[in-house]
Amino acid sequence: MSNQLHNELRKEFQLERMILFSDAVFAIAITLLVIEIKIPDKEFLNEHGGLSDKVLLRALNELVPKFVGYLISFCLIGLYWSIHHRMFGFVTNYDRKLLFLNLLFLFFVALMPFSTGFYGEFAGRELFEKQLKVPMTFYVLNFCGVGFVNSFMWRRIGNKRNKLAEPPIDPLVLKLAYARSLVVPFLFLLMLPVAYFANVLYAVYIPMLIPLVIGILKRQIRKRNEKNSIGNRTTDSSD
Amino acid sequence: MSNQLHNELRKEFQLERMILFSDAVFAIAITLLVIEIKIPDKEFLNEHGGLSDKVLLRALNELVPKFVGYLISFCLIGLYWSIHHRMFGFVTNYDRKLLFLNLLFLFFVALMPFSTGFYGEFAGRELFEKQLKVPMTFYVLNFCGVGFVNSFMWRRIGNKRNKLAEPPIDPLVLKLAYARSLVVPFLFLLMLPVAYFANVLYAVYIPMLIPLVIGILKRQIRKRNEKNSIGNRTTDSSD
Amino acid sequence: MSNQLHNELRKEFQLERMILFSDAVFAIAITLLVIEIKIPDKEFLNEHGGLSDKVLLRALNELVPKFVGYLISFCLIGLYWSIHHRMFGFVTNYDRKLLFLNLLFLFFVALMPFSTGFYGEFAGRELFEKQLKVPMTFYVLNFCGVGFVNSFMWRRIGNKRNKLAEPPIDPLVLKLAYARSLVVPFLFLLMLPVAYFANVLYAVYIPMLIPLVIGILKRQIRKRNEKNSIGNRTTDSSD
Amino acid sequence: MSNQLHNELRKEFQLERMILFSDAVFAIAITLLVIEIKIPDKEFLNEHGGLSDKVLLRALNELVPKFVGYLISFCLIGLYWSIHHRMFGFVTNYDRKLLFLNLLFLFFVALMPFSTGFYGEFAGRELFEKQLKVPMTFYVLNFCGVGFVNSFMWRRIGNKRNKLAEPPIDPLVLKLAYARSLVVPFLFLLMLPVAYFANVLYAVYIPMLIPLVIGILKRQIRKRNEKNSIGNRTTDSSD
Repeated sequence: MSNQLHNELRKEFQLERMILFSDAVFAIAITLLVIEIKIPDKEFLNEHGGLSDKVLLRALNELVPKFVGYLISFCLIGLYWSIHHRMFGFVTNYDRKLLFLNLLFLFFVALMPFSTGFYGEFAGRELFEKQLKVPMTFYVLNFCGVGFVNSFMWRRIGNKRNKLAEPPIDPLVLKLAYARSLVVPFLFLLMLPVAYFANVLYAVYIPMLIPLVIGILKRQIRKRNEKNSIGNRTTDSSD
Repeated sequence: MSNQLHNELRKEFQLERMILFSDAVFAIAITLLVIEIKIPDKEFLNEHGGLSDKVLLRALNELVPKFVGYLISFCLIGLYWSIHHRMFGFVTNYDRKLLFLNLLFLFFVALMPFSTGFYGEFAGRELFEKQLKVPMTFYVLNFCGVGFVNSFMWRRIGNKRNKLAEPPIDPLVLKLAYARSLVVPFLFLLMLPVAYFANVLYAVYIPMLIPLVIGILKRQIRKRNEKNSIGNRTTDSSD
Repeated sequence: MSNQLHNELRKEFQLERMILFSDAVFAIAITLLVIEIKIPDKEFLNEHGGLSDKVLLRALNELVPKFVGYLISFCLIGLYWSIHHRMFGFVTNYDRKLLFLNLLFLFFVALMPFSTGFYGEFAGRELFEKQLKVPMTFYVLNFCGVGFVNSFMWRRIGNKRNKLAEPPIDPLVLKLAYARSLVVPFLFLLMLPVAYFANVLYAVYIPMLIPLVIGILKRQIRKRNEKNSIGNRTTDSSD
Repeated sequence: MSNQLHNELRKEFQLERMILFSDAVFAIAITLLVIEIKIPDKEFLNEHGGLSDKVLLRALNELVPKFVGYLISFCLIGLYWSIHHRMFGFVTNYDRKLLFLNLLFLFFVALMPFSTGFYGEFAGRELFEKQLKVPMTFYVLNFCGVGFVNSFMWRRIGNKRNKLAEPPIDPLVLKLAYARSLVVPFLFLLMLPVAYFANVLYAVYIPMLIPLVIGILKRQIRKRNEKNSIGNRTTDSSD
């Protein structure tokens, strides 16, 4: 029984350890594409007529897709890091399933530099001219992985019976976080039928709908909540 | 004498430091094989008939062994991370030998991406057709390294005289953890005679016995423990 | 409401998490150029007449720009790490904007190894002979990015209304930190007109003005402050 | 004045941050050479007669210097990590100079994988046959860098006036740590004249003297200390 007490006391550090381990993986993932941006070597310079500003500019120009990939990847992983940061602001406990879900989440996060880089590499004119679907599909599947695991985590953490967040998360906050975590991967999934049956060009712009749909969701949930809380107040005035 | 007191007080952070350093090594090891998954470059595309979905799919196809390697490596390092996480949930102190064992453990962990990648690269048809034994041997030896060092660590931490875990770990929990940490490397070792004297194909499936053997072990240890605790109760009713 | 209290309590760890995540990115950025320093391989040795001290020295010689790049990059990232370290010594709270600014800061920090490496690669005779402007421009823009985001962060943290640093930072310390954070990127920016309209050689030495200008600033701010504090004392003797 | 108090309170976390940042750099340095151990690719296999155990063994054989390099580098960086770990077990405060010395220390630590890899690559027969001095010189200089900065740090931390370790470190412990931190780089330096004026073979074995010399040092310091403490007791019986 003393072990149980001991475990209880250590649990906080154990949770922090899980979070800081996640951060280390996030940090590696977020800088991964920088490693790919290599300084132009002498061979390239010699092939293109020796060292000059013009050739160096050309070398930089060839690196543009890598810069774009790094930029997109940095933004998206940074976004998921801040979601993870916000989510674990509520968490006060952990169990084996949360450890597992978190590892699965990190698995997909660590793949994000590849899939955004792969998608970003051909995100120029070529994507539309040749109606390339392979990089987009890979990218969509990776983001669905990240998104759905994220929404599983919200569900697990939000469920009071699991006692992972105490005091329990405000139901309104939880509803919104959960809805948002589902909307993102579903909108990404929508890209696939649009790309395959209509035009890749249209699919590219679907992620722009995300803030719009989340805005509508926010209002809807708040409205419903106000109605409920009015209903609750009449029947149950305590709390 | 005041230094000794001071050291006592700092010991907790010193232990945390050792743990967080381990996590950083784990985080690098777990993402190491992602670095190997490179975005298909223009040379590959030009060699195979220019940019098209078909060629991109082929490029992805060539990356399949790397994806498989990343997947296996991620799962196994994630597993050992969670064992390490669980183990250090009990530890409240450290000494030089534990520092050393932990470094040795990390040495083998950091090699795991190579050995699982090497084994995964040829885990398809070729492994059986050509009865390849070299990648499997390397893989087995690496896992025995991880496993045996892990079991040394359990023994050291579990020994009350070392005062590394206070209150001491529940004997049942410790016995199970220690037995499990020995079963895994011994079952891996078993792969070698099977591969060398029978068939590589059979050896591949041996790790699947692990959950089965651990299940039997769990029952055995619990049964024995119940008998002992009944015996103890009759002679010593306190505690 | 209980969630709000809970958030308040967790905020400290959440802030630490953001800081330690930044440190992981800094650590990767600061060691990034070491990865580029590869041990001379057998091909190089064979091409240049087999293994001998002379050939090995030549191999090391070819690595000199990489060593220089690592050295410069290490110093500069180390400098920005210690500025970040000092800045967050004041911070006791965070908000979404600070998270965002910090991520933007890390984006530019992670690019620093590339830009210093690119600039360092040609910082020898070639830079002046060929009046190369491309590497310097890239380098200057990267440093302006780091510098201006840094100064935005000081402004945000220093503003009492944001309640990010409590007790608020000493106004003199803040003024100096803010002025310094602006002087550095402006002096870097000055390199561009000098390089484009005068001579690249002169531009290279502009960063050496930084300690001088900061020294003058320090004196100016202190003088003004003394005047103000004398003025304050006569009208308001409390505090 | 309130800022000063605030700084005092934050100092502990600021110190921890510096330590954990160091650990991240250590973790990257210690795993750096693993990245170099690449899974044998299909090109190598095809060049050497297709996939077979024999060819795979040959591929592994070619990786032996990389494994050796990883092993040596891991041991040495692990050793310096545990020295750093022990040293900062005493530290309770920091100043700008300690931050700077620590960064300088990390600069040399991050170079260790290169220098041990470079030295390990030719540590076989070739080193003696060709009396190669370049890799050894680089290796010695890197270790002197690590060692001397380490001894500077001990001196700075041990000096009571700097108030970096409170309560101050036991003088006997400090003397021994400081002496040890000087002996190591001086013995490494000794390798150079031996290699240049006598035989590289002899130089290789000099590091083996380290435990011996440290053993002698330990005894000497303890003996002297006992004499002193007897002297102290007669004049000053308090404490």
